[in-house]
Amino acid sequence: MSKCALAIHGGAGTILRSLMTPELEEQYRSGLQEALRSGWAVLESGGTSLDAVEAAVVSLEDCPLFNAGRGSVFTHEGKTEMDACVMDGSRVRAGAVAAVRNVKNPVRLARLVMERTEHVLLAGGGADLFAEEAEVELRDNTYFYTDFRWKQLEEAIETGRVQLDHSAPKPMGTVGAVACDKNGRLAAGTSTGGMTNKKFGRIGDTAIVGAGTYADGLCAVSCTGHGEYFMRGVTAYDVAARMRYKGISLEDAASETIAHLTSTGGEGGLIAVDGNGNITLPFNCEGMYRASISTGSDPAIEIYK
Amino acid sequence: MSKCALAIHGGAGTILRSLMTPELEEQYRSGLQEALRSGWAVLESGGTSLDAVEAAVVSLEDCPLFNAGRGSVFTHEGKTEMDACVMDGSRVRAGAVAAVRNVKNPVRLARLVMERTEHVLLAGGGADLFAEEAEVELRDNTYFYTDFRWKQLEEAIETGRVQLDHSAPKPMGTVGAVACDKNGRLAAGTSTGGMTNKKFGRIGDTAIVGAGTYADGLCAVSCTGHGEYFMRGVTAYDVAARMRYKGISLEDAASETIAHLTSTGGEGGLIAVDGNGNITLPFNCEGMYRASISTGSDPAIEIYK
Repeated sequence: MSKCALAIHGGAGTILRSLMTPELEEQYRSGLQEALRSGWAVLESGGTSLDAVEAAVVSLEDCPLFNAGRGSVFTHEGKTEMDACVMDGSRVRAGAVAAVRNVKNPVRLARLVMERTEHVLLAGGGADLFAEEAEVELRDNTYFYTDFRWKQLEEAIETGRVQLDHSAPKPMGTVGAVACDKNGRLAAGTSTGGMTNKKFGRIGDTAIVGAGTYADGLCAVSCTGHGEYFMRGVTAYDVAARMRYKGISLEDAASETIAHLTSTGGEGGLIAVDGNGNITLPFNCEGMYRASISTGSDPAIEIYK
Repeated sequence: MSKCALAIHGGAGTILRSLMTPELEEQYRSGLQEALRSGWAVLESGGTSLDAVEAAVVSLEDCPLFNAGRGSVFTHEGKTEMDACVMDGSRVRAGAVAAVRNVKNPVRLARLVMERTEHVLLAGGGADLFAEEAEVELRDNTYFYTDFRWKQLEEAIETGRVQLDHSAPKPMGTVGAVACDKNGRLAAGTSTGGMTNKKFGRIGDTAIVGAGTYADGLCAVSCTGHGEYFMRGVTAYDVAARMRYKGISLEDAASETIAHLTSTGGEGGLIAVDGNGNITLPFNCEGMYRASISTGSDPAIEIYK
């Protein structure tokens, strides 16, 4: 029996203490705690890492504080377009969706792509059609509306910037989870609303197997940060490749991967777990919303370095 | 000064001699020869690997025989939706488009994503809008219509199959090119019409950095085959990872990567080049339309094993 382990993130970036109120910080911590609890309940009762990852990501998607699901940022056109991916390391299979609208929990839709189709990635209107046929929970636009996100969009349009969510004064971001269950099976999941003011159907790293999300028999990885750098660096898979081909530990591999990301000018972080229940949570920016728990260890919830 | 090298492919799969006429084989060879000539002319005159890859892929996109650009297969709805990606190894930057319509040369649009935006991947209607703003050459639907492809769709709908182009009786497929220029700079490009009868906005490996296309300072790789296996296996980047982390040659790395693909049940092949102008073209199926040339070597054009 393996040590069970679960790690989650709620985005990384310029998270400055000076811009954080005690009340807001408490809300973030509480959102992370709730998600960790949801995922851990699955693992504790003998469930699979895949179910645990889904439960944790769904919880984060339902929390309006994080840039995924309900709390997603707005595109240039004032719409919500979400990306998500799950990967089941034990069978090295994956499912992902990009630019889906009105889907309450994109991570669930990603899992259905994996389980019910022969494809890995469905995007745009086609993915929306699949969501309808699969009968996942849909929500109208008002569900995804928050004053704060709308103001972010207005500010971004005013300044002409495509805004990475985490560079906003009140940073939020991608969400993700990785888990190892009692049978040593690994899984990873990531979900996001992308960038404020994004145009032209931009797809980031979250939905891309190998870039923002990856899992196999060795490790499970979920990334957060400036997506384009993670796509060019094939960051999530790079952790697995370093472990497998260099024979180094999860922690060393993830640390090297983040050092490489830094060398390319990329900002962000990742969470990763291996088949022995080891967890690592490296990042190269001011902070990353993160939490973890494993058999025999208390839950840890952290924001800053 | 490096040895210049160029390799191209026009798809891989069940290419059976018994289904090939001498006339058709001659047409394929001539299409490959023309594309090889276009790319090699760039390298011979001192141009960059990126320009050479673009020229070769454009030539293949313009040839109605191959499943990319003009010869693209039809979606379930009878539309043409094309994916393409280019990667400039010398700067490790990339651009890609997915599910674009009416674009004469998707590989050119992918390059403009790389050069004119801060993004890596644009998809669907947003990418079409970018194509209009970027003023690339557009063509109406009739340009992309061929009787042969339409019949493939009708047959696929009749049998209820999502048809990988290369599993069709007359196999055609993805196209791609990799090059090393006189300064040892590497580049890769891939372009496709995807799968006959595809639905739900399916995106394959071609547009995904690390899956179907990858280039850095060590190697440039373009893949062809059953895309979902290449996505789960992060196949293109896997070649680079094996070279870098195991310290093995391009040929050994590519050979290991294809052996791994085979072990997962995936079918297809890849073309790859390193910074010394070495070329390798491994595949695990009956055939792969392929051609290559390098400084001091005659052009080679092959179809079968």
